Amino acid sequence: MKTNLYFQQLFEGESSTYTYLLADQASGEAVIIDPVDVTFERDVILINELGFKLKYILETHLHADHITSAAKLKEKFGAQTVISSAAPVTCADKKVGQGERVSFGSFILKVLSTPGHTETCLSFYLAEMSMAFTGDTLLVRGCGRTDFQEGNAAKLYQSVHSKLFTLPDSTIVYPGHDYQGFSGSTIGAEKKHNPRLGGGKTVQEFKKLMGDLKLDPPKRIQEAIPANLQCGNV
Amino acid sequence: MKTNLYFQQLFEGESSTYTYLLADQASGEAVIIDPVDVTFERDVILINELGFKLKYILETHLHADHITSAAKLKEKFGAQTVISSAAPVTCADKKVGQGERVSFGSFILKVLSTPGHTETCLSFYLAEMSMAFTGDTLLVRGCGRTDFQEGNAAKLYQSVHSKLFTLPDSTIVYPGHDYQGFSGSTIGAEKKHNPRLGGGKTVQEFKKLMGDLKLDPPKRIQEAIPANLQCGNV
Repeated sequence: MKTNLYFQQLFEGESSTYTYLLADQASGEAVIIDPVDVTFERDVILINELGFKLKYILETHLHADHITSAAKLKEKFGAQTVISSAAPVTCADKKVGQGERVSFGSFILKVLSTPGHTETCLSFYLAEMSMAFTGDTLLVRGCGRTDFQEGNAAKLYQSVHSKLFTLPDSTIVYPGHDYQGFSGSTIGAEKKHNPRLGGGKTVQEFKKLMGDLKLDPPKRIQEAIPANLQCGNV
Repeated sequence: MKTNLYFQQLFEGESSTYTYLLADQASGEAVIIDPVDVTFERDVILINELGFKLKYILETHLHADHITSAAKLKEKFGAQTVISSAAPVTCADKKVGQGERVSFGSFILKVLSTPGHTETCLSFYLAEMSMAFTGDTLLVRGCGRTDFQEGNAAKLYQSVHSKLFTLPDSTIVYPGHDYQGFSGSTIGAEKKHNPRLGGGKTVQEFKKLMGDLKLDPPKRIQEAIPANLQCGNV
């Protein structure tokens, strides 16, 4: 591993959300992906202990199951909030779309537009380290649901197949959530073994499978979406 | 990262245990560290999907909070079970102590004897990848308790300071448990920020701190220890 990348995966158990902290240890510049309100204090202590300068707070999408700590982290560290250019959010400092780049120190995250779970879903690809932060678009042996927030199964299928499964097989998949204890996977493994999207599943099969799920709404959707439209500033 | 190491961290939520799967992708030889009975099926599916040949099942110690799946994995894959030479366990295929080596493909795990949480605690060091699997000896911003199973705070302090804090600062610490959502840390960060063992804490301070904890016994201790003395063959 290139020794000047600092990488830490963090878990928030209430919503089973993964937050990621990445930093260029040479310059101290850091980014955090999908931070959660209830783990704000933990993350502040961690960033301060490590002495990083938080530059960007990235959202993979407008979350429905938890409230972001973006606004609080911005206030604490003076970092900029970043979200999809498709998101109806006026509080974000920077809006990004397909092919744009977000840098910290010498590292560059490439933005991949991967709608389907929601219309505003992004993935972030750190090619140099073979890491992809796939949000709720691609989960380990699963994927995000597609039944609200302009979710669209055909779009999700297309996003995964055209933007993620075209990455090198050895790319490590770091998902936005996990409910089974998986911390990550690889693109190669998901292409073969993802029961919804891999192993040659067609878009028709995928649409039927997603349509048949009949899930309850996320518990906190009524408070989470309005709060996240304000960058968590509630 | 050397591309022929496969590495996966796995979480078991009931006991907040981390299990680790490592494999040499060139030969397919794999080891698993601290597998848990309740996640046996998940781990079998994963190993089979990835096509690995499980060679060793390693225990960092005789666990008191969960039952190992070692015997079941051994039966399934024909792998050998490995535990500390200090453990009063007759079912293990291989017993190891300080300085011994456990290999899978071209990779070598060096055994570090790190008693203190229990008398049988080991850590495993993969120098080539700067990874240390520290079991319950060193946790992220914490450590294992020292009030049962011949636990001894002075020994734990000595183990951490002589065997773990002497590793390079950039070594990634992969703990046996976490309760706060940390997936790992580094030796450098723990030397500075571990509130029990870092930042210049003396052995006297540490012994007082551990003595004052007054913790309830682990919920499953009465079933876990007898079961683990049989390699989980219950």
